[in-house]
Amino acid sequence: MDIDRHRFRRSASRITVLAHALGVTALSLLLVWLLHYREGINLDSDNASRVFNVHPFLMFFGFIFFAGEAAMAYKTVQAERKVQKFTHMLLNLIALVLGIVGIHAAFKYHNMINLKHMFSLHSWIGMGTLCFFILQWLFGFAMFMFPRSSNSSTRERGLLWHVCAGRALLYMAICAAETGLMEKASTLKLMDSRESHLVNFTGLTILLFGITVDLSIALARYI
Amino acid sequence: MDIDRHRFRRSASRITVLAHALGVTALSLLLVWLLHYREGINLDSDNASRVFNVHPFLMFFGFIFFAGEAAMAYKTVQAERKVQKFTHMLLNLIALVLGIVGIHAAFKYHNMINLKHMFSLHSWIGMGTLCFFILQWLFGFAMFMFPRSSNSSTRERGLLWHVCAGRALLYMAICAAETGLMEKASTLKLMDSRESHLVNFTGLTILLFGITVDLSIALARYI
Ligand code: HEM
Ligand code: HEM
Repeated sequence: MDIDRHRFRRSASRITVLAHALGVTALSLLLVWLLHYREGINLDSDNASRVFNVHPFLMFFGFIFFAGEAAMAYKTVQAERKVQKFTHMLLNLIALVLGIVGIHAAFKYHNMINLKHMFSLHSWIGMGTLCFFILQWLFGFAMFMFPRSSNSSTRERGLLWHVCAGRALLYMAICAAETGLMEKASTLKLMDSRESHLVNFTGLTILLFGITVDLSIALARYI
Repeated sequence: MDIDRHRFRRSASRITVLAHALGVTALSLLLVWLLHYREGINLDSDNASRVFNVHPFLMFFGFIFFAGEAAMAYKTVQAERKVQKFTHMLLNLIALVLGIVGIHAAFKYHNMINLKHMFSLHSWIGMGTLCFFILQWLFGFAMFMFPRSSNSSTRERGLLWHVCAGRALLYMAICAAETGLMEKASTLKLMDSRESHLVNFTGLTILLFGITVDLSIALARYI
């Protein structure tokens, strides 16, 4: 049995490495798409498409990637618990801020091309994700940064729900990204082009990033 | 601590009930959409839209709903282990068969309207999900229906990976459903209509079904 636990632990750490690799790969594919196939990334541009491109970039790299790394911080940061906790909080704060800027870019784009707001399934899932993310961050901050304010059994139960809510949020964020890519590919009518294959591979890599981050958390908890 | 465990177990069983309720709600919303707003469901029709509608219906109700219920069978079926295991296997087999018929409907629709196959992110995620699902079913069948063919430590490790793979598959299936709804809403140009709100609520309910099934499995394992 002890050999088994040892094996599991090694599997878990390998999956964390895989998660980092998938995250970086997805980021590279996304950048090739936005910079090479599309018009580039610029929030202050007069070109509406360049403003829009800020949105997928910040939503994946700013929001999902940072939040995923935050979720794995207890495994990757080799330091005392306090430092891990602070890193976790800080990475999630960065994700939150960049996520808000990213959604701002989508709204700015819609205003520039005179399009209604918040009509698509994607926008509903996305806005839901960000709202719950902010709540989760605030609860986590209150509960774990000021541990003396609650008794240890409340905090222990709180931790379980915090982990579950965090994993549910990652789920939602990945669905937001996939529906976003799908929506953009549909409206651009990419069909069976080289660009559409690139977008599809980006989507698959983002999905695998989500799954491996989730597994790396789950495996560590099963042990 | 024992009181805490007891509380967790109750929470887990409440979440399983919530998962059933969300599954049934999503099914109802989907049927209202396909039967009232769309042309109805018929695999043998000359009307391509009616053939297409078989696809979302079977992919959610046949594939995702049955697979989700299969994942929760160890909680919901109050019987000895053997019976639970058999129910789990059978529900997943039904999901697999109905899933294949559902994908057949999408291919038939594409043939009827002379559209290429497998170009979208949705179709890639969907096909990937079904292929891995078949593999997972075959592995599970070999490993757990003939337990004497492997030693108990192999089987124990196998079970951990089986659970992780199953949860990853549910993740992928939910992303397939969300991107499918998004793609259809885009190509139908539903924009800000009543119908689009219905589709969005269906998508949110399917997402919550996935999250609650996942949580119900996770909470039972944390205890
Ligand atoms: C976690 C990630 C994401 C979140 C939280 C998110 C959130 C949002 C929100 C709230 C809107 C509505 C803006 C408005 O109504 O003015 C929106 C729009 C949009 N997003 Fe995202 N997004 C995410 C990722 C992506 C990605 C990766 C893409 C890929 C290209 C994308 C593509 C779009 C498109 C095409 C729109 C405009 C159409 C619409 O209103 O739905 N999004 N997003
Ligand atoms: C787990 C669930 C699902 C799976 C595994 C799945 C799988 C697939 C596959 C493999 C295709 C390609 C067919 C072809 O190329 O001829 C396809 C097409 C399609 N599916 Fe799904 N699907 C799922 C759920 C849904 C849902 C819920 C919808 C909602 C309406 C949907 C909408 C579509 C659409 C519009 C197409 C045609 C466009 C395309 O090729 O991507 N799917 N699906």
